[in-house]
Amino acid sequence: MTDKFVTLAHGAGGKQTSELIDRVFKEHFANPDLTADDAAVLSMEKGKIAFTTDGFIVSPYEFAGGNIGKLSICGTVNDLSCMGAKPLYLSCAFVIEEGFPMDKLEEIAAAMAKTAKEAGVEICAGDTKVAGKGQVDGVFITTTGIGRIMDNANTSGKLAKAGDAVIVSGDIGRHGCTILLARDEFGIEADVTSDCAPLWANVKAMFDVTNDIHVIRDATRGGVGTVLYEIAGQSGVGITLDAAKIPVADEVKGVCGMLGLEPLYLACEGRLVIFAPKDKAEDIVSALRKCKNSENAAVIGEVTEDNAGRVVMKTEIGSQTLLPQPGGELLPRIC
Amino acid sequence: MTDKFVTLAHGAGGKQTSELIDRVFKEHFANPDLTADDAAVLSMEKGKIAFTTDGFIVSPYEFAGGNIGKLSICGTVNDLSCMGAKPLYLSCAFVIEEGFPMDKLEEIAAAMAKTAKEAGVEICAGDTKVAGKGQVDGVFITTTGIGRIMDNANTSGKLAKAGDAVIVSGDIGRHGCTILLARDEFGIEADVTSDCAPLWANVKAMFDVTNDIHVIRDATRGGVGTVLYEIAGQSGVGITLDAAKIPVADEVKGVCGMLGLEPLYLACEGRLVIFAPKDKAEDIVSALRKCKNSENAAVIGEVTEDNAGRVVMKTEIGSQTLLPQPGGELLPRIC
Repeated sequence: MTDKFVTLAHGAGGKQTSELIDRVFKEHFANPDLTADDAAVLSMEKGKIAFTTDGFIVSPYEFAGGNIGKLSICGTVNDLSCMGAKPLYLSCAFVIEEGFPMDKLEEIAAAMAKTAKEAGVEICAGDTKVAGKGQVDGVFITTTGIGRIMDNANTSGKLAKAGDAVIVSGDIGRHGCTILLARDEFGIEADVTSDCAPLWANVKAMFDVTNDIHVIRDATRGGVGTVLYEIAGQSGVGITLDAAKIPVADEVKGVCGMLGLEPLYLACEGRLVIFAPKDKAEDIVSALRKCKNSENAAVIGEVTEDNAGRVVMKTEIGSQTLLPQPGGELLPRIC
Repeated sequence: MTDKFVTLAHGAGGKQTSELIDRVFKEHFANPDLTADDAAVLSMEKGKIAFTTDGFIVSPYEFAGGNIGKLSICGTVNDLSCMGAKPLYLSCAFVIEEGFPMDKLEEIAAAMAKTAKEAGVEICAGDTKVAGKGQVDGVFITTTGIGRIMDNANTSGKLAKAGDAVIVSGDIGRHGCTILLARDEFGIEADVTSDCAPLWANVKAMFDVTNDIHVIRDATRGGVGTVLYEIAGQSGVGITLDAAKIPVADEVKGVCGMLGLEPLYLACEGRLVIFAPKDKAEDIVSALRKCKNSENAAVIGEVTEDNAGRVVMKTEIGSQTLLPQPGGELLPRIC
């Protein structure tokens, strides 16, 4: 295939579509379960699975620390991991703009393959559509995943309990900050890299030290603040954060200071929020700190019976303020 | 929620996203497995499953006989069915253009719910993204499905054998013809309705009369002609079609005649192509004819040892011509 750009014919389902699939996707995704039929055929054991889907429309599609391909694998792998599920199988559906550079599509496919390998997951089904120039901006990818839930895992946003510690797996807001800078709309330069990473190994490491984990959520769109409000609502509990303990990289703090942003509402793509009993928190944090991508894990707060549905922030000078409810649109197409 | 149009805030992951999900999607998709967590938790039996994904970008998103919502369910349900798999669970990921009418989104969700019910499948996970005005054209939907493969089913594009009959489940080319007319670019008026339909019941009816079915494929993008070339290639066989036996509705024939199109290359979204031993063909056709959406099933040809990889058409006057290889772009955004 010598085409340098994606054409409408690549999306028509005929010869050119087969060529695109063979030379770009099969080349990178090759594995015994990758299907050439209408669906992949997979052997399953009896038990509970997790099933999740996410669309990725990030702009720009390349950024410091990754591209839309890496992101599309991490997002779905992490959603499965949050349910205590070992990621097994992924599907991916592309919508590509006519004229998209073929070499960039290859880079995206290569990043997907690399990240899938790192996460121990197989891409086994896919779809390719091409929309005319101006009908889709660049490339959109939807990934869907199946994972096997570990017997000892039982996590849900409804299970946070008064007395739980609130843990984050690393410094927050990197991904949102990276995309913001990549758009170059503010004339700010800072050396920030996305936290985008697959986190199954990190979840597994936590369950290796305790089964007593109530909630795991990855803080993507809306950031850690939005996740905390969701869980406060789903579990009917209050959350108190200790502002001084929230890990934020200096460069992210700097950008947030200049633009008046709250890092708690900046998206992450490789950070977990974990709720577990206080007496297990130290073991969990220490297990996380031994893993790649969670070296800066920290307890940032606790769950309370009062203030149900709310998130309260204890500031560094000891006062308490209500974290504002998430809402509105901070930054479109962050993931 | 009183918003009449989708806004960027509906895609930001915060309060407005929750409202949109609650009032539009949960309202229509409600079922015990629909998740509010990062992934749905599903109980699986030991055995083989089928897993498939498809992106839908059809333009216009409403057409005679359906809309993108109905189409997005049928497409994935039919891909599962083609593997002899009873459709069990679906996920759906939306990318919506800022400013998309909320009432139209509701109609799409309602059509999805209705079609899912008809197919006996649960929508249990989803995702909603909003892209800015002009960054996506209307609404794109990706659905992904899990189905349980019946013990007595073993279908694949590789399994066509010399001596097999080639069956279609109904008259061909309706969907492609409908979309073509809906775009109103040719000034042709004709009363054509899309064949868009979920076909699990039809597949089940075939397996109720025989397990001896080698290939089932739904003829979507590229139409029946493209499917036949795919299977000829995958199985290393030739296919001979009897032109007189191919069911085409008069109105589709008329439009094709005016525009110089071959109905075999017009997309269907509710038509199966089936390969099975000749001595089972009559039973299969008669089982299909008793089902809704396959009343016009017919044997249209046979598999041959010679002409491997090719599709030959016997014309009504007895001559033989090679069906041209599929390729190029007939009509973008057909599904």
